[in-house]
Amino acid sequence: MCEACDQSDEDQAPAGTGRRRFLAAGLGMTAAAPLLFGSGSAIAQAQSPPAGGAVAAGPYPTRAWGVTQTAGKFAPMTIQRRALGADDVLLDILYAGICHSDVHTARGDWGVPGLPCVPGHEIVGRVAAVGRNVTKFRVGDYGGVGCMVDACGTCENCLADREQICVNGTTFTYDAPDKVSGGHTLGGYSERIVVTEKFVIRIPPGMDLRATAPILCAGITTFSPIRHWNVVPGQRVAVVGLGGLGHMAVKLAVAQRAEVTVLTTTPGKIAAARAMGASAAYFWQDAQARPELRNRFDLIISTVPYAFEAEPFMRMLKLDSTFVNVGLGEARGINAVAMAFGRKSLAGSMIGGIAETQQVIDHCFARNIYPDVEVIRPDQIDGAYQRVVGKDVRFRFVIDFT
Amino acid sequence: MCEACDQSDEDQAPAGTGRRRFLAAGLGMTAAAPLLFGSGSAIAQAQSPPAGGAVAAGPYPTRAWGVTQTAGKFAPMTIQRRALGADDVLLDILYAGICHSDVHTARGDWGVPGLPCVPGHEIVGRVAAVGRNVTKFRVGDYGGVGCMVDACGTCENCLADREQICVNGTTFTYDAPDKVSGGHTLGGYSERIVVTEKFVIRIPPGMDLRATAPILCAGITTFSPIRHWNVVPGQRVAVVGLGGLGHMAVKLAVAQRAEVTVLTTTPGKIAAARAMGASAAYFWQDAQARPELRNRFDLIISTVPYAFEAEPFMRMLKLDSTFVNVGLGEARGINAVAMAFGRKSLAGSMIGGIAETQQVIDHCFARNIYPDVEVIRPDQIDGAYQRVVGKDVRFRFVIDFT
Repeated sequence: MCEACDQSDEDQAPAGTGRRRFLAAGLGMTAAAPLLFGSGSAIAQAQSPPAGGAVAAGPYPTRAWGVTQTAGKFAPMTIQRRALGADDVLLDILYAGICHSDVHTARGDWGVPGLPCVPGHEIVGRVAAVGRNVTKFRVGDYGGVGCMVDACGTCENCLADREQICVNGTTFTYDAPDKVSGGHTLGGYSERIVVTEKFVIRIPPGMDLRATAPILCAGITTFSPIRHWNVVPGQRVAVVGLGGLGHMAVKLAVAQRAEVTVLTTTPGKIAAARAMGASAAYFWQDAQARPELRNRFDLIISTVPYAFEAEPFMRMLKLDSTFVNVGLGEARGINAVAMAFGRKSLAGSMIGGIAETQQVIDHCFARNIYPDVEVIRPDQIDGAYQRVVGKDVRFRFVIDFT
Repeated sequence: MCEACDQSDEDQAPAGTGRRRFLAAGLGMTAAAPLLFGSGSAIAQAQSPPAGGAVAAGPYPTRAWGVTQTAGKFAPMTIQRRALGADDVLLDILYAGICHSDVHTARGDWGVPGLPCVPGHEIVGRVAAVGRNVTKFRVGDYGGVGCMVDACGTCENCLADREQICVNGTTFTYDAPDKVSGGHTLGGYSERIVVTEKFVIRIPPGMDLRATAPILCAGITTFSPIRHWNVVPGQRVAVVGLGGLGHMAVKLAVAQRAEVTVLTTTPGKIAAARAMGASAAYFWQDAQARPELRNRFDLIISTVPYAFEAEPFMRMLKLDSTFVNVGLGEARGINAVAMAFGRKSLAGSMIGGIAETQQVIDHCFARNIYPDVEVIRPDQIDGAYQRVVGKDVRFRFVIDFT
């Protein structure tokens, strides 16, 4: 950072919001006087939200959009958000992304969900109130919530910053047992949410907030393997499937200066892949026969959420390389001998921990990496789901609650 | 090395054969006068083998033991070894190990083999003659031949020291197309073999030659993943199956000061596992239910040659860890979500290249690591095969041709 001009490349927001503006906003909030809600309240720091008006300690009746039966239509409803605890943050939700897993859950593809089901785990909001112990946020900051809202914090996985696989049970953002309030968790298709501060990600105020929401699931899910398998400039990365996850994988790998190839079952997406910086894109059925793709890739990231034949992909891996299945489709037809020839690996990976999620937000902010989003109103969720299933989205729907 | 005492730890042979003896033997051979076999011969350096008597340029009628029909009984036969080429080494075979894959091949488990079938790819012999270009060996040296006898040397895999996966086709030691002599290759159950020098491993003269043979397949197959996945002291390694490969995996991992656990389907081998230095050993069916084995291992090496359910093993892996399938049994029931929880990998690995095979020989020599062998005569092969199938071998049969 250059003290002289009070601005650095890293701190400069992509949309032109620089360090000055960030500092101005920050200082403005520091100057606001705290409002206390009585000695019995957990709220010690609660301040006026930018729009003005004090925020009560809750619980908070909240407008949400959910289904009341499996595969039902989305309808507005009122849900309760819990009273603010000492470590909690109340977010006024601004945007929530629609992840393919929302569709699977609401439609019962993975079993009957808890009802009503309010999906949404790509959430960006503005901090409306904070509990008395909260030090990570002040009212008016922007916060993000991804796929999880709590974990034990003491098990070996939590201590390894892998809260998404807490040994004692991660609390996922929706359709998971709610250990604080009972019942099941209700997600981001709603106007407010209360989350313990540790599970709220700091969003730099200069970010493009609408396009930030999908980074909290699609971004971290693809960032984590790119980082774990240490993709370096010049390496060859293949991305299978060009949906919400896939297009983030392309953008993140291209930003890493890898040579990226897209394999898609939607021929119409080939041009889009190239526009994102992929050096090659193939219709998947054609790609399998191409000899130039044999033994080619340092890493293959599959975002395919359905069962697929793994063998053609294994043949495309270089020696000692990995096919990582973040789409969680079942890999069929694994051939032990073919994997042994070339010491190839099939791996799984799932989102990332809180620290790594903060890292992908900061990474995308610093490098101006955003998903392509199509913004909809809450009353358009059903239509959006149809288009997700039909692979007709470029490349993530984001619901606007502002 | 200490010049004063002419001996070093590294050079000291485990059986008490020190550097002095090595030097004496070496100097003795250097002093031997080369015998030439006429100007038309490829043999320029051929010398008297220690037993005396000149060696002709070949081809060499050679006594071998093989089967003439699938799953037939082993019988002695005479095969031809090719005339010595300029880059070739003629080995008088001293010992050959019996690998489980020999049994599969001779019995037709993997399809009808080329007949007659002479298995054997764990070969230790004495150099009886060398071609005129050979510089790696002198007559009287000891040489080893593992699973392969040739490769193109020019493809990307050969250039990466991975001759076992030559893009243009590795020539395996038996039952592979013989690109030099035509027909199919014939392996180490025989008294002589001619191999191009690059594919002959240098065996330090102080090694326990009988026990060295299995290192050339069982040793390298388990050494390679231990090295590739960088097992370090204190890590926890599980070895599944305690046969020829498994017991070498245990010894190599224990020598690496890993904490080794053995999972076996033969309860009678539990004591043997502990005797080799394993800190724990479980009957496999019991192990699956043990909660203390959940999320425990940094590396699992499976030597199981049959299809098996992978899921119980995956549950035993720590975060970010790998199950490597060197036994090449089919891993069934891979669960993408379970692998994603914990970013676990399923990998293959197959023997190792020539440089790495030399490395495991030198490694075992320096650290006095040897397989446990049971030495048999060539007329006992059929009985040995029965016992291999019945898991009744501790832990590798070696045929003595001396």
